[in-house]
Amino acid sequence: MTFIDELKFNEQGLIPAIVQDESNNAVLMMAWMDKEAVRRTLETGRATYWSRSRKKYWVKGETSGHTQEVRSVRIDCDADVLLIRVEQTGAACHEGYRSCFFRAVSPDGKTAVSDQTRLINPETVYGKKS
Amino acid sequence: MTFIDELKFNEQGLIPAIVQDESNNAVLMMAWMDKEAVRRTLETGRATYWSRSRKKYWVKGETSGHTQEVRSVRIDCDADVLLIRVEQTGAACHEGYRSCFFRAVSPDGKTAVSDQTRLINPETVYGKKS
Repeated sequence: MTFIDELKFNEQGLIPAIVQDESNNAVLMMAWMDKEAVRRTLETGRATYWSRSRKKYWVKGETSGHTQEVRSVRIDCDADVLLIRVEQTGAACHEGYRSCFFRAVSPDGKTAVSDQTRLINPETVYGKKS
Repeated sequence: MTFIDELKFNEQGLIPAIVQDESNNAVLMMAWMDKEAVRRTLETGRATYWSRSRKKYWVKGETSGHTQEVRSVRIDCDADVLLIRVEQTGAACHEGYRSCFFRAVSPDGKTAVSDQTRLINPETVYGKKS
């Protein structure tokens, strides 16, 4: 029995993976993995997710070049969440920010506005949205 | 329209909340919130979750005293994940560790073992499991 057998996947066979920047502990993103994505991530050392919208595996950076080299994998007490610590190249966020969490909620709780710098123009990486 | 109206809840009306330690950026846990839990968290400044197993609201620390004072709330690009930065008192994990992610997967991917120190004995906080 390996650690993968310990994991508790949800009704869709998925587990959330929180991705953390090895260099400064920033939380970069959250994505979903199925058992095969976990296996591929461990085997290749490249973060590999399951895209719920596109219904396919997705190696982070395969389009953008903004890869995530896995440095360590942790699991939580209930074995139903993964924490993946990575060496992130460039922007983790498809909107061109280092982290997907580039918006902070205002103290009055009314709005969420970006307080981060955009590293790249997404159109130059992913093409224009049609 | 406030930021809560922007959030995308899943089919169960829930959104994952990643909880990060304001003091050192460690990822402490992940829990789920519904719209009302988000509202209560913002209003009270105390992290409040929806327990899927107990089907009730759950103010972190109400049993253990290990409260989470909310310092900031962030949302991701897709508005379907929250990042809550907190001042954590004591142990975030019900197993007595500072973080729920106290287990690291071994380099061969086979096992996940604790590499963290237990802060408290859970039985002294939550009582013995019967």
